[in-house]
Amino acid sequence: MSASLLRLPTGPVDLRGLPTDATPDFAHGKTAGKVALAELGPRLGELQERLFSEHTTEHPRSVLLVLQGMDTSGKGGVLRHTLGLVDPQGLRITSFKAPTAEEREHDFLWRIRRALPGPGLIGVFDRSHYEDVLAARVRGLAPLEEIERRYAAINDFEAELLAGGTTVVKCMLHISADTQRERLLERLDRPDKHWKFTPGDIDDRQLWPAYRAAYETALERTNTEVAPWHVVPSDRKWYRNLAVGRLLLDALEGLAPTWPPARYDVAEQRRRLLHEADPDPDPDPDPEGSAA
Amino acid sequence: MSASLLRLPTGPVDLRGLPTDATPDFAHGKTAGKVALAELGPRLGELQERLFSEHTTEHPRSVLLVLQGMDTSGKGGVLRHTLGLVDPQGLRITSFKAPTAEEREHDFLWRIRRALPGPGLIGVFDRSHYEDVLAARVRGLAPLEEIERRYAAINDFEAELLAGGTTVVKCMLHISADTQRERLLERLDRPDKHWKFTPGDIDDRQLWPAYRAAYETALERTNTEVAPWHVVPSDRKWYRNLAVGRLLLDALEGLAPTWPPARYDVAEQRRRLLHEADPDPDPDPDPEGSAA
Repeated sequence: MSASLLRLPTGPVDLRGLPTDATPDFAHGKTAGKVALAELGPRLGELQERLFSEHTTEHPRSVLLVLQGMDTSGKGGVLRHTLGLVDPQGLRITSFKAPTAEEREHDFLWRIRRALPGPGLIGVFDRSHYEDVLAARVRGLAPLEEIERRYAAINDFEAELLAGGTTVVKCMLHISADTQRERLLERLDRPDKHWKFTPGDIDDRQLWPAYRAAYETALERTNTEVAPWHVVPSDRKWYRNLAVGRLLLDALEGLAPTWPPARYDVAEQRRRLLHEADPDPDPDPDPEGSAA
Repeated sequence: MSASLLRLPTGPVDLRGLPTDATPDFAHGKTAGKVALAELGPRLGELQERLFSEHTTEHPRSVLLVLQGMDTSGKGGVLRHTLGLVDPQGLRITSFKAPTAEEREHDFLWRIRRALPGPGLIGVFDRSHYEDVLAARVRGLAPLEEIERRYAAINDFEAELLAGGTTVVKCMLHISADTQRERLLERLDRPDKHWKFTPGDIDDRQLWPAYRAAYETALERTNTEVAPWHVVPSDRKWYRNLAVGRLLLDALEGLAPTWPPARYDVAEQRRRLLHEADPDPDPDPDPEGSAA
């Protein structure tokens, strides 16, 4: 995987010190950014299909893209615009909501494990196990000792994923509170976006500092070598979509999947196919033809 | 739903009498066909998002696209090229393989029900419950009485789906045995397609007439008013992709989903947002600024 300027350095995290509106590694503007994203399509598509083809082999791998971020940070936009570039057959997208009663009866990773991508797939988590140390912490949904336990449990889990062939790509979509206000206002101003808004979204803004603190702790505690965090400046939607696309491409290029070789004799199968009995003979041969 | 020339008339079905290489309802060629498919994108995308927004309402609907066809008929191509036009968040794709031991212990519809699209989603079945009257019949995987029972069970099931808000769009991708041979040869000739081929694919061609008979019976017995069949000429990939796109668009236009109205007072929420306490005050105000 190539180095990325977006990779979070290890150590204490200060989200206020990380830009929300910059465009690291991209010197051009919105129009060029959209073109650059579209241009990722063919490479992403080919590498995704190569990865997918591994499901026919003995050691198939997979990729898990974890998308986290405050409301309106654009997890859905990344799914639509960036993941929309690849064959939907190769994707497994899971949007995690508040846990159900059944899910709450199990360890927090239970529902996560059930949503992992199968062999050869790109899994995408729209929210994830990180909500169990973010929302859970801010809203007091679990005792603090349990939340403390979870950081290490997450690191163990992600190390286990990598050992099992799943590359984990973690992206925090980083926006400012002002950008969130603009996006909520847009949802109120556009009737085609009213369904995306609930009044609780405004109440939740007063939790912004608590969420930031919870993110900073989570990012610091789970920024491991095997599954590092990337903090993606996301005030500009086009940059966010492009940056996540590049991170996904980096991960796929790091895996460098190749087409599986044939497990049969190609020449022999060719001969069989060219000399088979006609599987679908004409039931009513043309009598004139036969007479000729 | 608008009438389609591809809708199968009721009554006995003779697949040999239905074209595999025609392009009904489209007078142009391949290049224009690809453009026409791309042009469906924005309408498909908007209607899909409107349908998706219904998951926030009390009576959300969904669509289930059933893709059936012989090997190489292009179910995967439709998924990639046609379903690839819509937001992957709005799709739920299930590829049915031979049933597992657990699945075989249940009624044939058990695994099907578990894969139905949730509220507001477009579900796509790459193979489906129809395999339980097709492969099951041809390969003798179930007693004939059981297979006979299944036709009615399928009709009841699909009527139940429609009553529950799920529109079922059934497409049989119709190719000739010659086209299948060409496509299998291509898989043998191209190293990037070797993984898609197994020698059993050639053996299965000798079952072509048996499969055709099983399809004819299944199509006739399950071609209901609530869930009619469409037979899509699929020797030309571009036409197949376009035709299924049009059928999906017809279904979505028939549903005519609209944006859900706000369940809150928009003006009041706007005021709240514009007059909230700053959720993220600057921790270290500029002293020069304060002195000004």
